Amino acid sequence: MTTLPRPDAAPVFDTARSPHARLHPVALGRVRLTDTFLEPRRAVNRDVTLLSQYRHLEDTHTLRNFRRVTDGSGEPFVGYVFNDTDVYKWLEAAAWTLAEAHDPALEGMIAEVAGLIEGAQDENGYLDTYYSAGRENERWSDLKDNHELYCAGHFIQAAVAHHRTTGSQHLLNVARRLADHIGSVFGPASQGKRELTDGHEEIELALVELSRETGEKRYLALAEFLIEVRGRGVLRADEGNHTFNSTYYQDHLPVREMNRVVGHAVRMMYLTTGVTDLYLENGDTSLLDAMQRLWTHMTTRQMYVSGGLGARYEGEAFGEDYELPNARAYTETCAAIGSVMWNARMLAATGAAKYADLLEHTLYNAVLPGWSQDGEAYFYQNPLADEGHHRRKAWFGCACCPPNVARLMASLPGYVYSTAGSEVWVNLYVNSEASLPVPGQDVKLIQRTDYPWDGKVELTVGTAAHFALNLRIPAWARGASLSVNGEAQPTPQPETYARVERDWQAGDSVTLELPMPVRRVRSHPRVLENAGRVALLRGPLLYALEGTDHPGTLLDDLVLPPDAELSVQRVPDLLGGVVVLEGEARRSPQADSDLYGPDANEVPAPASGKLRLRAVPYYAWANREPGQLRVWIREE
Amino acid sequence: MTTLPRPDAAPVFDTARSPHARLHPVALGRVRLTDTFLEPRRAVNRDVTLLSQYRHLEDTHTLRNFRRVTDGSGEPFVGYVFNDTDVYKWLEAAAWTLAEAHDPALEGMIAEVAGLIEGAQDENGYLDTYYSAGRENERWSDLKDNHELYCAGHFIQAAVAHHRTTGSQHLLNVARRLADHIGSVFGPASQGKRELTDGHEEIELALVELSRETGEKRYLALAEFLIEVRGRGVLRADEGNHTFNSTYYQDHLPVREMNRVVGHAVRMMYLTTGVTDLYLENGDTSLLDAMQRLWTHMTTRQMYVSGGLGARYEGEAFGEDYELPNARAYTETCAAIGSVMWNARMLAATGAAKYADLLEHTLYNAVLPGWSQDGEAYFYQNPLADEGHHRRKAWFGCACCPPNVARLMASLPGYVYSTAGSEVWVNLYVNSEASLPVPGQDVKLIQRTDYPWDGKVELTVGTAAHFALNLRIPAWARGASLSVNGEAQPTPQPETYARVERDWQAGDSVTLELPMPVRRVRSHPRVLENAGRVALLRGPLLYALEGTDHPGTLLDDLVLPPDAELSVQRVPDLLGGVVVLEGEARRSPQADSDLYGPDANEVPAPASGKLRLRAVPYYAWANREPGQLRVWIREE
Repeated sequence: MTTLPRPDAAPVFDTARSPHARLHPVALGRVRLTDTFLEPRRAVNRDVTLLSQYRHLEDTHTLRNFRRVTDGSGEPFVGYVFNDTDVYKWLEAAAWTLAEAHDPALEGMIAEVAGLIEGAQDENGYLDTYYSAGRENERWSDLKDNHELYCAGHFIQAAVAHHRTTGSQHLLNVARRLADHIGSVFGPASQGKRELTDGHEEIELALVELSRETGEKRYLALAEFLIEVRGRGVLRADEGNHTFNSTYYQDHLPVREMNRVVGHAVRMMYLTTGVTDLYLENGDTSLLDAMQRLWTHMTTRQMYVSGGLGARYEGEAFGEDYELPNARAYTETCAAIGSVMWNARMLAATGAAKYADLLEHTLYNAVLPGWSQDGEAYFYQNPLADEGHHRRKAWFGCACCPPNVARLMASLPGYVYSTAGSEVWVNLYVNSEASLPVPGQDVKLIQRTDYPWDGKVELTVGTAAHFALNLRIPAWARGASLSVNGEAQPTPQPETYARVERDWQAGDSVTLELPMPVRRVRSHPRVLENAGRVALLRGPLLYALEGTDHPGTLLDDLVLPPDAELSVQRVPDLLGGVVVLEGEARRSPQADSDLYGPDANEVPAPASGKLRLRAVPYYAWANREPGQLRVWIREE
Repeated sequence: MTTLPRPDAAPVFDTARSPHARLHPVALGRVRLTDTFLEPRRAVNRDVTLLSQYRHLEDTHTLRNFRRVTDGSGEPFVGYVFNDTDVYKWLEAAAWTLAEAHDPALEGMIAEVAGLIEGAQDENGYLDTYYSAGRENERWSDLKDNHELYCAGHFIQAAVAHHRTTGSQHLLNVARRLADHIGSVFGPASQGKRELTDGHEEIELALVELSRETGEKRYLALAEFLIEVRGRGVLRADEGNHTFNSTYYQDHLPVREMNRVVGHAVRMMYLTTGVTDLYLENGDTSLLDAMQRLWTHMTTRQMYVSGGLGARYEGEAFGEDYELPNARAYTETCAAIGSVMWNARMLAATGAAKYADLLEHTLYNAVLPGWSQDGEAYFYQNPLADEGHHRRKAWFGCACCPPNVARLMASLPGYVYSTAGSEVWVNLYVNSEASLPVPGQDVKLIQRTDYPWDGKVELTVGTAAHFALNLRIPAWARGASLSVNGEAQPTPQPETYARVERDWQAGDSVTLELPMPVRRVRSHPRVLENAGRVALLRGPLLYALEGTDHPGTLLDDLVLPPDAELSVQRVPDLLGGVVVLEGEARRSPQADSDLYGPDANEVPAPASGKLRLRAVPYYAWANREPGQLRVWIREE
């Protein structure tokens, strides 16, 4: 393996000393992906995306917002009030990338950015370029909407990542000063502080991580305060605004009383991530109970089949239960990234395979679609149906999603394995090599697999050691089988970890077979738009139809009868190499009739008969010529 | 009839001298409604709504925004930048109300408001309280979003109405000075003026009306300029904002090149109204052609079955074709009012019955639902499905809808009849008495009907005269019959005006029978949410189910089989007296199954069998205890 700056450091979140973590993520420097699916995308992230994003940060004046604090230019702040976070998320992505190898060019950019940030910090520790160089008197005046704690949180996360991968105290000290300043302003009224919090969560999880990284319990206490102060209905827009009431800001109820994911979806995910992080430290089961209730509500009432979250454009928010429109799905890429972060914490808290299942599903089907194959364009919204107008863009005025994708891709190896004592968990299947810590030694583990295209996984243990190997059996993997050195093991059950404990010898091999038939999935009848429609999945991947594969056909005229057979075809030269699903469909034009009328919905008899259907993985859509998209296919 | 201040004046728009009007609206002072459906609501408007709205204008500081311009108080402007229009629309409503009778209390409030407005006008004619008393230097600096011409337009409309019903030149002169000032700023660059217009249409139709009212052609020319300058893509938000591009402002194409209703729905309706008004003056058929194309697009791709317009919360806008979600229907009350105004102009331009049909349908099913039966609460959005959370509110931060309802209700008698030479058109059926101008004399016409509950209409001519009576036969009125003095006439055809020309004698009677069976209407299959569902209509009214009539039943568990019989019941003590539709439905619970899965949408066999269905007129929903609403009912 490549020499790493700190090979045993840099977990994506560090639960090594968290009393209530049942599993601990393995440092991402210990895992090297060598597959042809994720790693090529990570290479694009490293070689193309990080550089192009840095240029955007310059071009949009986002870095100049830092320079103007000290250069006396008198230039105005440019962009949204929270644009500093674009820099911080980029910095976090760059910091995780350093776990792989030294990269002098990247390190040069990091040094430039780190210097700008340090320079923009006030003597008292305050850091937010919008409220500096002239707006000092307005600080903390609009907590609801002006995102100062949100910005602080993203910086702290970046500083923690930077410390983890480089060992440098430089930015971590800036983060400490910032957190100490925040702690001097916010806290119990009995201490003369302000009993308030920010309209956009993020600081909570960041402070827990800062506490873990520094060992300072006061940052954990501050995170706890900022979580516990929620639920007083203080954060809300003026009367008359129907959207931005206290549910939008998750300030409608104390966390423990919440039963529903509500409001701005990204905020909700960052809140649940932070609360779960807090539980991992304090073991308050009433918090974990609430998180489990919210997770169940989210997955049974509010989630797209892609794993995407947030049905509504207005408020970038969760809607009513079962309100899941396809073309108008908001499903912000950032919300999916938040879900990955939350599910990783829920996995750490419980060890339940369902969280790893959803982490994987969301990564493949709700995060990856948000990023073009060339690494330079992004979706903010990820609809499940489209007419060809929705295309990825190089950047946004509100550019939260692009660097969020970059930091997740950069930290991805950190999600593959977990450990605890002499237990090892394999959460994600990906061709890779790893060095995993079990008591007393590091164990080499090699995964050989063509996942997600094929469900066969061969693991080779490279080091003699006693430990238990826990292999995730996805909920979809009915009929999975497992053998060790060719010897069949008990049938693994879906949605569990299959456990094999033994004295492993170097060269021992484990073979897991996860059957990947095409799955036809229907929606609960209250998801009105999907009536009479089916979605196709195979293994961890959701599929979709694109217009470009069906020239001359409107995708709503295409009917896939329930009994139609679907074949599985590997197409190496398509979309970077994908498996497509093919089958015979029927052309059944929808009526060109009145909008409303007694016979308006009568569908005429089949016109030209049969046609060939080809479904491609949903993550790869909109990488060819613009055209229609349908995830939900007519079945009748 | 009551003595009117100016009995022969005050048409809702005045086409008396418009060269290209085929029909002219009859002055609203000439028509007295005496029915039990509309007139009681107009009485509420006059006796309750106007007073309560005036109090809101005080309580929300909207009137104080005018006072602060002159009182030197230094108070800040309060509310949205366009809040002046709340005052103007209230003033217009009050002015139309004066056509009915003197009302000293109302006249006192009008005088107070008129004085405030005149006081707030600059010496140069400029009028907008946001940009006065300190913001003078910022005037006309953000045409896209700051609504100065929009505000001016609403004032001019109010001033015209005030002049029409009172004969007073007072406010009309303020309007002239304002329009002259606008004309000095906006116009061809060759005249050293600004070639730009406002982001929110309204000024166009107001200037045409001002031209009609004053006889000054320069106001018509200014309206024409402000219409013709559109389509250059100048009005658009910064890059990165997906919603507020130039389609939102209808600045994406010149009006003549538009084929689709797009963007903010109210703006679109005010634009089409203004363009049609311009056509009525200049006869440019390329404008009328464009309006007809837009009308067809709207009614065949973009309109709710209620007549409501604007599918999207984000941008209060039209969506994609067939994008018509029910619970998340935006269908702003103001957009429906705009549609009424536009259809009235299209009727004037063409004489085609379909425009009067849609005017009536929109009034009954998209405007009336926006207003509570007690006259003091309003809907901004008018969904077609709800879980009981959407309730009318007393006022809004953006309070455009309440006074818009008030001005339409106040001017309603002006939509009932049209005339041209010796032709009379009956557009709306309503128990009423009227004095209609035909050449050389006024003809008394009495309507006796229980419309909209019953389709029988008896008209009695009270004055001997030669003229043609044109009776609207709604598109839904198949099998209508017509007789004059008991003598059968040729069968009238739906969606036409049935014409009877003769020498009428005093006491001649015309009997029209419009059959009102219950109509089951289905949606085009591309309206995804309505698959397998049916809506019920009878006569001009759309019906809906409310939870309160179906205790213990989720409305999505209720199935109305295609062959179920529906009875028609008059219920005098329900909702002010309505006709309900009743029938036997089936209870078929929707599965309490997974959100997604192979069997997720399987509906279990009927559980408890039959239950009674009761549908009430949609306009009356949410006037009882909160509960579910469904316009579209499961049919299978």
